[in-house]
Amino acid sequence: MASQPEMEHPKKAFGWAARDSSGVLSPFKFSRRETGEKDVTFKVLYCGICHSDLHMIKNEWGSSVYPLVPGHEIAGVVTEVGSKVQKFKVGDRVGVGCMVNSCRSCQSCADNLENYCPKMILTYAAKNVDGTVTYGGYSDLMVSDEDFVIRIPDNLPLEAAAPLLCAGITVYSPLKYYGLDKPGLHVGVVGLGGLGHMAVKFAKALGAKVTVISTSPNKKTEAIEKLGADSFVVSREQDQMKAVMGTFDGIIDTVSAVHPLLPLISLLKPHGKLVMVGAPEKPLEVPVFSLLGGRKTIAGSMIGGIKETQEMIDFAAKHDVKPEIEVIPMDYVNTAMERLLKADVKYRFVIDIGNTLKASSSI
Amino acid sequence: MASQPEMEHPKKAFGWAARDSSGVLSPFKFSRRETGEKDVTFKVLYCGICHSDLHMIKNEWGSSVYPLVPGHEIAGVVTEVGSKVQKFKVGDRVGVGCMVNSCRSCQSCADNLENYCPKMILTYAAKNVDGTVTYGGYSDLMVSDEDFVIRIPDNLPLEAAAPLLCAGITVYSPLKYYGLDKPGLHVGVVGLGGLGHMAVKFAKALGAKVTVISTSPNKKTEAIEKLGADSFVVSREQDQMKAVMGTFDGIIDTVSAVHPLLPLISLLKPHGKLVMVGAPEKPLEVPVFSLLGGRKTIAGSMIGGIKETQEMIDFAAKHDVKPEIEVIPMDYVNTAMERLLKADVKYRFVIDIGNTLKASSSI
Repeated sequence: MASQPEMEHPKKAFGWAARDSSGVLSPFKFSRRETGEKDVTFKVLYCGICHSDLHMIKNEWGSSVYPLVPGHEIAGVVTEVGSKVQKFKVGDRVGVGCMVNSCRSCQSCADNLENYCPKMILTYAAKNVDGTVTYGGYSDLMVSDEDFVIRIPDNLPLEAAAPLLCAGITVYSPLKYYGLDKPGLHVGVVGLGGLGHMAVKFAKALGAKVTVISTSPNKKTEAIEKLGADSFVVSREQDQMKAVMGTFDGIIDTVSAVHPLLPLISLLKPHGKLVMVGAPEKPLEVPVFSLLGGRKTIAGSMIGGIKETQEMIDFAAKHDVKPEIEVIPMDYVNTAMERLLKADVKYRFVIDIGNTLKASSSI
Repeated sequence: MASQPEMEHPKKAFGWAARDSSGVLSPFKFSRRETGEKDVTFKVLYCGICHSDLHMIKNEWGSSVYPLVPGHEIAGVVTEVGSKVQKFKVGDRVGVGCMVNSCRSCQSCADNLENYCPKMILTYAAKNVDGTVTYGGYSDLMVSDEDFVIRIPDNLPLEAAAPLLCAGITVYSPLKYYGLDKPGLHVGVVGLGGLGHMAVKFAKALGAKVTVISTSPNKKTEAIEKLGADSFVVSREQDQMKAVMGTFDGIIDTVSAVHPLLPLISLLKPHGKLVMVGAPEKPLEVPVFSLLGGRKTIAGSMIGGIKETQEMIDFAAKHDVKPEIEVIPMDYVNTAMERLLKADVKYRFVIDIGNTLKASSSI
């Protein structure tokens, strides 16, 4: 059993994996498939740590498969391409986000929304088309169908590009789809973590007036001075909340803890949209009256399609939208997870796979 | 105090009012303002009984003012117009719905969405611009600014037009706004009362495939044969619900009792919309996960603007969309309210004000 992942495929691979729901990560030898006709193989140089990695290594969503190599914010350089690959060549700077395949035949796939394909294959802990389990980017090597590979523009550092592939697209896509991308609109961002800080930056770059809505007054200075928000409202301060009631065209809510929605709905203008991108484990309460009166909407959004992910990363490169990151060595990952649990990171950990994974490969 | 409503304005008016939260209606003498420059005065011939009338006479929303003359589905014939009235003349067939004025200066008013104006004045139990209380259509006479009067097309009977002014526009407006008005879409209707049966008819007339989703299997035959629905799903039957999972572009939910939303959200296609037009008193639970996965939306909608109400009634006249009604005499109203509470009506009571209110005026 222990040797199976190592023998499964011809290409030797090495990463860090959780072995059970304790969630502790440790070095792990496995394998990747041979570069297929349509495949791009790339050396992983950086991988972001998404909050869902933490949920997954502990099996908090009940779907985990062990050993589990997390990581779906993966950036690196192409080392090999299949004979029928058209878009990439050796040496290209590329990335892979949350998914590595989809059915290619449903309406969502036809609409370039592979992220909503019911047969979409997640980058890790999912069953791949060949029946084997997918492994993520806390590893030295990726092999992916070219249709699920993103080109990273030259002026965007790879370590900055990595978190865009999940955190970035997760907030960019709803800003576009829900019409919050028009200059001059007032956009709120709830929660200032990995997703929230990217929402502030993208909304600003799209021309919105951005207000951060947070429980922590001590985040104000940084939200405005470093991230570029226009204003800051402490959600526990009734007076501050009252002062901005009915003034938001839309709010991107990135909080994944249970929290009251009515105060946020009250902040919306008529026809305003409250977009949830975090996923609280328990249902939230919605007072329906509060939606009727102003024809308001509570909506969800989940990452984005490949086409839009490419558009997002090109936009980010053009407008200098980059995540705030803390680059860490591979063997710091368990400490990083503990810090992430306490929200002790500004604002995204990125593992320096290229320089630090090899060092621990002798373990 | 008792004589005040009778003396307040120059025009004598007569109707039925609730005097307290017992909700019992009885004959009531009051008065209406003189026909102003921009006013249309009309003889009320029919008035529909909306479920909100029942809530209001019992003060179940806490906003009632007594004596309270309900009624906001009002149809009649013009008897007098002010000197500056441009759109109407004596003899015209007209109606008034849920509102009689708005601020005329906010964005919602500018967008022909007076129904979302924060200063919109409800047709009854609201404070009018002159400081007096508004009285509704369970009465012989209405005086309204012409901008809030709807023209009723000649081929639409007045008793059929009345319920369109609230129940009709309440379901027509979200079908349009939320893009559920394209031929071939699959639209669900939850609850088959005053609103629900109109939602079936309008969605069909707009070209949708319509499925009624109901707890009561015994409504199936009528839903299909009389109202024109294409299919019927019993929401308590797991197999039937499973068979239509992920097949709806949108669902109009007219139920005002607390009910689970997850089963309805599961019926939506990706990007599908669950539109609430009923108003449960307690908050409903929303599992956020269920919104993220398919970029789904829970939205609200409340009546419609005057321009759209006119469009709706013209559409109804053109496409022969008419409510199913039970015409009742004025003095049956308390019994009608009891039956309404038990959902014992197919599908809307309409009071024959013109022929039966006078008869009881000697009381």
